[in-house]
Amino acid sequence: MIKVALIGSGNVAKHLFEVFSMNETIEVVQVISRNEAALKNFGESVNTTVNFSRIAEADIYIIAVSDDAIHAISQLLRYKKKLIIHVSGNTSIQILSDHKRNGVFYPLQTFSKKRKIDFSDVPICFEANNEADSILLEKLAKSISSKVYNVTSEQRKALHLAAVFVNNFTNHLNHIASRICNENQLPFEILRPLIRETVDKLELLSPYEAQTGPARRGDKKTLEDHVGQLKNSTHKEIYAVLSKSIQKTYGKKL
Amino acid sequence: MIKVALIGSGNVAKHLFEVFSMNETIEVVQVISRNEAALKNFGESVNTTVNFSRIAEADIYIIAVSDDAIHAISQLLRYKKKLIIHVSGNTSIQILSDHKRNGVFYPLQTFSKKRKIDFSDVPICFEANNEADSILLEKLAKSISSKVYNVTSEQRKALHLAAVFVNNFTNHLNHIASRICNENQLPFEILRPLIRETVDKLELLSPYEAQTGPARRGDKKTLEDHVGQLKNSTHKEIYAVLSKSIQKTYGKKL
Repeated sequence: MIKVALIGSGNVAKHLFEVFSMNETIEVVQVISRNEAALKNFGESVNTTVNFSRIAEADIYIIAVSDDAIHAISQLLRYKKKLIIHVSGNTSIQILSDHKRNGVFYPLQTFSKKRKIDFSDVPICFEANNEADSILLEKLAKSISSKVYNVTSEQRKALHLAAVFVNNFTNHLNHIASRICNENQLPFEILRPLIRETVDKLELLSPYEAQTGPARRGDKKTLEDHVGQLKNSTHKEIYAVLSKSIQKTYGKKL
Repeated sequence: MIKVALIGSGNVAKHLFEVFSMNETIEVVQVISRNEAALKNFGESVNTTVNFSRIAEADIYIIAVSDDAIHAISQLLRYKKKLIIHVSGNTSIQILSDHKRNGVFYPLQTFSKKRKIDFSDVPICFEANNEADSILLEKLAKSISSKVYNVTSEQRKALHLAAVFVNNFTNHLNHIASRICNENQLPFEILRPLIRETVDKLELLSPYEAQTGPARRGDKKTLEDHVGQLKNSTHKEIYAVLSKSIQKTYGKKL
């Protein structure tokens, strides 16, 4: 049995709590947060506290708070010989170097309050500063996911950046498309099969191979047409720079 | 039985041929193309010709060629009283106005040679210049798809533009992410669950609601970190303009 204490009460803490609670090899001994109201969302069956001097004993302390609070929170943990980890994509393991045993446990997924996540499919990127803790974190990761990767802080930062492209930016492109639909009395629904196929295609082709469209073809007339259709000047900029990038990638001149 | 003649031998022509051929209410009487080699891909069972003076009689002539060839090809069709349609997203119905009966049949999907498409899920956007042909095109569309929309040329142009955002641009973002993975000795595979969840989330939330990430939070430190990590200057530009657009959308100042 791996005993974990969760520090934090946000989305990631909540999702980790849920998957750990259902697992027979993991025991969540406590959830710690300064947000008393948010702690109520963790239910009656787990020990919770707002008091950092009353932290229970555990094998692993998981700090699941916003990036800029990690260091301060880590300083409040008194068990100096226990493994202390954070769950941030963009934060080096070094931030926990005041603790002798430190590590990272980064679930590479987007978490929302409203959606339940199947953790068995979530890549877990772990890192530890010694071999024994690396084995312990790998065991913890493998007990909830089939996709477990040992990555360095440098690699994790790169993944976090890549995730912004495939998730945050893609979602914003979908938002722009939904606005275009809206302005033309069309349901966003109509784009859904295309959005899905854009992803499904990647099972067979690399994104490099899968590229189509006017920029890929060097179809200048359509590119000009499209920029002309857009009303928002920032959306025009987005159209122009992405088209330029596609053309550069495939060696077409503007 | 609706008799159709297909003019063209590219991806869209081939996909339409396949779905029409399997349908009991549609007969493909002929495939016409100047590309003799490509015609061989349509098999032995259908009549094919490279000779535009030998076009067979059909109820609907479907011009599935590149946008800039539509007008010239339409001029070669001698059956002036038959319904002539094109399949282009970005081309007005007006381009066929030399023909008394004209229309559009636009399947809103990305077609590749390597991937089979389930047409029942492909939105078909149709348009005709008279009521009877509108009914005929709707019938043709409904015989292959459950998602049939009567849209104007103006709306179709907007959809074509929106499709560039959700398909072409999203795919390019995936390409940039795959390069970042590659440069850091990470498999692109690791991003797949996140890419999938980005789409799956839209079943529950609008893209506006689903937005997360550093730009959405106004996390200036991470934004600067990320731009610093990118090596390619065009990718830096993409990162900056998309982050700016997200911040504008949610009223955060840069």
